[in-house]
Amino acid sequence: MSVDTQQAPPGLTDGELAGLDAHWRAANYLSAGQIYLLANPLLTEPLRPEHVKPRLLGHWGTAPGLNLVHTHLNRVIKDRGLDALCVWGPGHGGPAVLANSWLDGSYTRTYPDVTRDADGMARLFRQFSFPGGVPSHVAPETPGSIHEGGELGYSLAHAYGAAFDHPELLVACVIGDGEAETGPLAASWHSNKFLDPVHDGAVLPILHLNGYKIANPAVLARLPEAELDDLLRGYGHDPIHVAGDDPAAVHRAMAYALDTALDRIASLQRAAREEGADGRPRWPAIVLRTPKGWTGPHEVDGVPVEGTWRAHQVPLSGVRTDPDHLRRLEEWLRSYRPEDLFDAQGAPRPAVLRCVPDGDRRLGATPYANGGLMLRELPLPPLEEYAVPVERPGATLHEPTRVLGDLLRDVMAATADRRDFRLVGPDETASNRLQAVYAASGKAWQERTLPVDEDLDRHGRVMEILSEHTCQGWLEGYLLTGRHGLFSCYEAFVHIVDSMVNQHIKWLRVTRKLPWRAPIASLNYLLTSHVWRQDHNGFSHQDPGFVDHILNKSPEAVRVYLPPDANTLLSVADHALRSRDYVNVVVAGKQPCFDWLTLEEARTHCARGAGVWEWAGTEDGTREPDVVLACAGDVPTQEVLAAAQLLRRHLPGLAVRVVNVVDIARLLPSGEHPHGMSDFEYDGLFTTDKPVIFAYHGYPWLIHRLAYRRTGHPHLHVRGYKEIGTTTTPFDMVVGNDMDRYRLVMDVIDRVPGLAVRAAAVRQRMEDTRLRHHDWVREHGVDLPEVADWSWDG
Amino acid sequence: MSVDTQQAPPGLTDGELAGLDAHWRAANYLSAGQIYLLANPLLTEPLRPEHVKPRLLGHWGTAPGLNLVHTHLNRVIKDRGLDALCVWGPGHGGPAVLANSWLDGSYTRTYPDVTRDADGMARLFRQFSFPGGVPSHVAPETPGSIHEGGELGYSLAHAYGAAFDHPELLVACVIGDGEAETGPLAASWHSNKFLDPVHDGAVLPILHLNGYKIANPAVLARLPEAELDDLLRGYGHDPIHVAGDDPAAVHRAMAYALDTALDRIASLQRAAREEGADGRPRWPAIVLRTPKGWTGPHEVDGVPVEGTWRAHQVPLSGVRTDPDHLRRLEEWLRSYRPEDLFDAQGAPRPAVLRCVPDGDRRLGATPYANGGLMLRELPLPPLEEYAVPVERPGATLHEPTRVLGDLLRDVMAATADRRDFRLVGPDETASNRLQAVYAASGKAWQERTLPVDEDLDRHGRVMEILSEHTCQGWLEGYLLTGRHGLFSCYEAFVHIVDSMVNQHIKWLRVTRKLPWRAPIASLNYLLTSHVWRQDHNGFSHQDPGFVDHILNKSPEAVRVYLPPDANTLLSVADHALRSRDYVNVVVAGKQPCFDWLTLEEARTHCARGAGVWEWAGTEDGTREPDVVLACAGDVPTQEVLAAAQLLRRHLPGLAVRVVNVVDIARLLPSGEHPHGMSDFEYDGLFTTDKPVIFAYHGYPWLIHRLAYRRTGHPHLHVRGYKEIGTTTTPFDMVVGNDMDRYRLVMDVIDRVPGLAVRAAAVRQRMEDTRLRHHDWVREHGVDLPEVADWSWDG
Repeated sequence: MSVDTQQAPPGLTDGELAGLDAHWRAANYLSAGQIYLLANPLLTEPLRPEHVKPRLLGHWGTAPGLNLVHTHLNRVIKDRGLDALCVWGPGHGGPAVLANSWLDGSYTRTYPDVTRDADGMARLFRQFSFPGGVPSHVAPETPGSIHEGGELGYSLAHAYGAAFDHPELLVACVIGDGEAETGPLAASWHSNKFLDPVHDGAVLPILHLNGYKIANPAVLARLPEAELDDLLRGYGHDPIHVAGDDPAAVHRAMAYALDTALDRIASLQRAAREEGADGRPRWPAIVLRTPKGWTGPHEVDGVPVEGTWRAHQVPLSGVRTDPDHLRRLEEWLRSYRPEDLFDAQGAPRPAVLRCVPDGDRRLGATPYANGGLMLRELPLPPLEEYAVPVERPGATLHEPTRVLGDLLRDVMAATADRRDFRLVGPDETASNRLQAVYAASGKAWQERTLPVDEDLDRHGRVMEILSEHTCQGWLEGYLLTGRHGLFSCYEAFVHIVDSMVNQHIKWLRVTRKLPWRAPIASLNYLLTSHVWRQDHNGFSHQDPGFVDHILNKSPEAVRVYLPPDANTLLSVADHALRSRDYVNVVVAGKQPCFDWLTLEEARTHCARGAGVWEWAGTEDGTREPDVVLACAGDVPTQEVLAAAQLLRRHLPGLAVRVVNVVDIARLLPSGEHPHGMSDFEYDGLFTTDKPVIFAYHGYPWLIHRLAYRRTGHPHLHVRGYKEIGTTTTPFDMVVGNDMDRYRLVMDVIDRVPGLAVRAAAVRQRMEDTRLRHHDWVREHGVDLPEVADWSWDG
Repeated sequence: MSVDTQQAPPGLTDGELAGLDAHWRAANYLSAGQIYLLANPLLTEPLRPEHVKPRLLGHWGTAPGLNLVHTHLNRVIKDRGLDALCVWGPGHGGPAVLANSWLDGSYTRTYPDVTRDADGMARLFRQFSFPGGVPSHVAPETPGSIHEGGELGYSLAHAYGAAFDHPELLVACVIGDGEAETGPLAASWHSNKFLDPVHDGAVLPILHLNGYKIANPAVLARLPEAELDDLLRGYGHDPIHVAGDDPAAVHRAMAYALDTALDRIASLQRAAREEGADGRPRWPAIVLRTPKGWTGPHEVDGVPVEGTWRAHQVPLSGVRTDPDHLRRLEEWLRSYRPEDLFDAQGAPRPAVLRCVPDGDRRLGATPYANGGLMLRELPLPPLEEYAVPVERPGATLHEPTRVLGDLLRDVMAATADRRDFRLVGPDETASNRLQAVYAASGKAWQERTLPVDEDLDRHGRVMEILSEHTCQGWLEGYLLTGRHGLFSCYEAFVHIVDSMVNQHIKWLRVTRKLPWRAPIASLNYLLTSHVWRQDHNGFSHQDPGFVDHILNKSPEAVRVYLPPDANTLLSVADHALRSRDYVNVVVAGKQPCFDWLTLEEARTHCARGAGVWEWAGTEDGTREPDVVLACAGDVPTQEVLAAAQLLRRHLPGLAVRVVNVVDIARLLPSGEHPHGMSDFEYDGLFTTDKPVIFAYHGYPWLIHRLAYRRTGHPHLHVRGYKEIGTTTTPFDMVVGNDMDRYRLVMDVIDRVPGLAVRAAAVRQRMEDTRLRHHDWVREHGVDLPEVADWSWDG
């Protein structure tokens, strides 16, 4: 569908067009004002150097285009009574979104001291990019935003996440031509293969080609137009073009394009919802070509600026010192005719506000951008229905993620009507053994299906695309607009979204301090198919470092759990799904794992986050341990318990304490993390002077980084993954990384005073078994029988 | 360009087609054999359970398609005498690539014990996915590979990286339909906008649509064909389709498609190279649709397998215990007629090898896939030409990256004819102040240009695309095929490639142990626009954690440098550019920075990696320090020196030592990293009992993680970035994170025994200055004059 965009939509009067232009000019004036002005906001006097900020920070280039889009979205939202949200991909356009929010009054509603008058305008200008003020990007502080945009690439996935299960919502998404070059953005175009026209809202991509990035032309802006159309059609869209640099013509074209797109969306939704139309619709997309830095200085110091990359940041940089620059700035600002736009008190004149919708329909005030306001408690069933029976520790085996799958199935079922819970993953839900959920919801899929397909469902809420980026972006958008979800991922490949989760945690850290932002559901990761059990994938699939990455971020927003069995996983997952404003990382295995704790024990243990497993050691309440065996993670727990068993058999007099850690931040001092333990608690668990042999799921030095301040730290010895791996057996992996039971026993012998001589024979026996394993596994291709058949005999 | 693929290329005889089919069947047989067989490789006796591996690991689904591509590439390479390399995106297809390499003899050339006979075949089978054997993926151990593929998404960027500056090379790239859903892959299609048809080779994408991922249909495989064609045309390609499940027809079509594509490539190259054709050519791409698990079991246990996702891994899983599965396996293997393919000794028969090229033309033997063989020393000019003069420390300021830019310009110039050096970055070369390079090479660009454009060059070797993934993939491919390069990136956003660099480091770790793999040039990062100077971007642009990520990986392959000024940056960069088989991370600022060291001093200091700056402390050789002020990074160094100056003024009796660390791994124990210091060295620098106040560029706990084993660790106190940031002034950033000079002085007073009382007034003065700063910056928008105008008075 290509449309003629030279004519105004029927019924749009010249007066309305003039009003749109006035709103746009006002927003442009306010955008430039934020970048430059400390005082004299209405230019009521000639501009002097002291009216200008001492440091000019900000990005002008993208602002006029964003202002155009915002102005025209205002019109259609008001005219059509739409519930709408806009994701502003060019996050550097902070001044534009702030300007529009100030114009529609939602800024003042959110920040009452920034009034819609000359004083408030002065505040708006001054605070921008100013110490103690507001950031230069669209940010958590910006009303109406769910998207920071400082790191480019995630706008479209966020937009789809917001649209899922919001059938009444229009999500406009402005994609910059810089952002369009990123991988995550490129992948997310295919999100439309997962958008259900019945239960989901609509996403309207607006690809803004202003032609340049920081210093280069943008690739998509320079494609031959036919090739760009092919690309968009290949992405499943019908492109609608708007291009030009004459404001009046562009206003007409943009109004026409938006009306065309929205009529088309309404018709596609009606067909799917009322007429039973099947198959994926071809949704419209708008391609908007306007000059970078449009209406700004055309040339500066003899070189072109408007319409080039030089307009990216601050077009006139010498304003405080160069009288000519100052004069040019004043000319530029006055070119918007502020006196026509604002009254003597600085309030926008009625003509400027003619296109602005009311109340919650304003883009700066929509509750969809403050999703916590719309969040409902997730209906979580009692865990008793899923718990595995544990008569005694280690007598049975379960696949923890499969047990969790049953719980997730029932959460999926309980939200069948509410549709506010989704499970996302890169083609791994079944591989991660969560496939029970399919009994309650299939996998979202709008393409054609074949008879051999299973569990695909046009209306499904399990989301699978082989892009961790898209999964993450969808889920972020979904949570930010007031819903719940879980991302299950191979542990190693969650690093793909390291940088995305950085941004989400930064967002949470800031929103937690903004009283007007209501808490949202936590972003929950289930990391499975983990480092120790990559039997058929090997070295490339082994990386437990996401935990390290997460623990570098703001402590108030991050939680990391390593449940050692099925019931602890249930307890942790229940807690994570109920929580707010966190990123919860849960690392759990999908392979059969011994059941250690009953549900009741698991709950108590998880609530403490770390504790002594009396039954696993030699605790009898009468003596201090000679050694502490600590563990975190399912495989380390098994190795520590096997080591404890070996010690009981071979060194019966040794007092052994076994400590299991579920909540890894407990190891931090209480001042460093909300879950951190006091020294009193820590010393009570780990002692201050006994050797602690700690088997940890991930990189061993993480434990030192968490515990280095503890009195007993010099006695702490950690085993974990140290980048030794290939395609091999499970036990060969732990031996290769020196975390096996035999090695742990040797560590105990090496570190408990007096044992070195007394237990030399035991030590040799352990060493011999390791060598025997080495030979056996290379001959037979399977683990030593005594390891493969091991079970806890406590 | 759509072609009729039902006819064989002119001149391709039935005999040749039969030979292609024999080769393909042999490769399929060998692929399945690797997954299943421990013994009886030629099926010379009936298959018994003990002939089968105890653990069945591997991925069959993709193998037949890869074998088809390899077989047909063999033909065209041989017939046309091509220099070719293939990047196998579906890395899970390890058995296929190993099979082909064994067939063409390159496997035996590389691993002489795996002979091309029955014994060798048995070894080939047994070692696959077996403890002590070879990984299941295409891996560093695989001859002919530059691409692991366990983590999907990077094949096409690797292919382009290999093709750049190799004008004679054809790089075929098989892209799986799963991989095609990833962001990095989606972005990398646009690499053709940067491929110079004159100086670069050709990339032939072969999009392999076998229809399914692990458990789902693939998105691209289910698009309507016209929409897929639109997409590929939108990516700038002319698609050529090959589809079917009848081997004979597919052989004909594939041969025709390859001939068509290669004729087209030759013609496009001729036009550009000989006829001066300008503009970006529309390169061909092949779309290959064949069933997943083609020729494997059609149904198993009553459900369809061939052509479905169920063929992804091991189609018959019960072979050791289920006689029916065993029988089905034997039928399947015999369906390839091994007796027709291999002689009695197990060697491939001549008909099978008819299509196979000779010597280095074999895909398993091409030196392009062992790039170290082709690597030349980089012509690095003497650093003296670029060094900034330093009469005394801190008397002048330079922008370190700008100084480095001059060096890079001359490296670019010195390689103008050789074309074996490239600079990549996401639209940030100029922002990172390296723009001097444009004097020697423009930015690669094949799209149309406009009069306002600057420094774009059809033949340029500076590569800018706003995708860190594509930059990383290009550079990896370029280095792996024997060239040099540097990736300059905003520090925060290098996390975008966390997972990619994981895989590259894993690759290096393995190749370092393979004697046949020649060392390649290191992957060098210049991380700039760093956390402390994101003045106009703020919180989203602040993350110094890449160093933490890198230091989790194999120590033998990772190096991290934090040069504190321009001359140290030159010295570090020179070292990094000369090195082999590392990932070097260099963190350096682009803002004006005091010059501390002369080039000679810088060289000495960088060679030591860490050392006392006697001139900065109170060292006179007669007394032990009372306190050590340590620093790593440019901003921390400045704050530490300012603190040392304050201490000299306010506490003149205090003995202060200043230690600067450039090479951060020096802090590790010598047993943990090749650059690690002995305790003797460490204690000599930092003492064992004096307070050490360490100002570090990144997250402070990293220093503890590195130094926790040192005797003096209990006295180590680290300041660094702790996720406090927004758009503000440079000094407000260091104050916010408690790393400012005043705070450091307070730390000294708090920690040096006896100072707390004696220096209480000084401490109060420091505190007061911090408060004064806080108010000043919020009023004036700039830093306190005494900070802004500070300089070293030593």
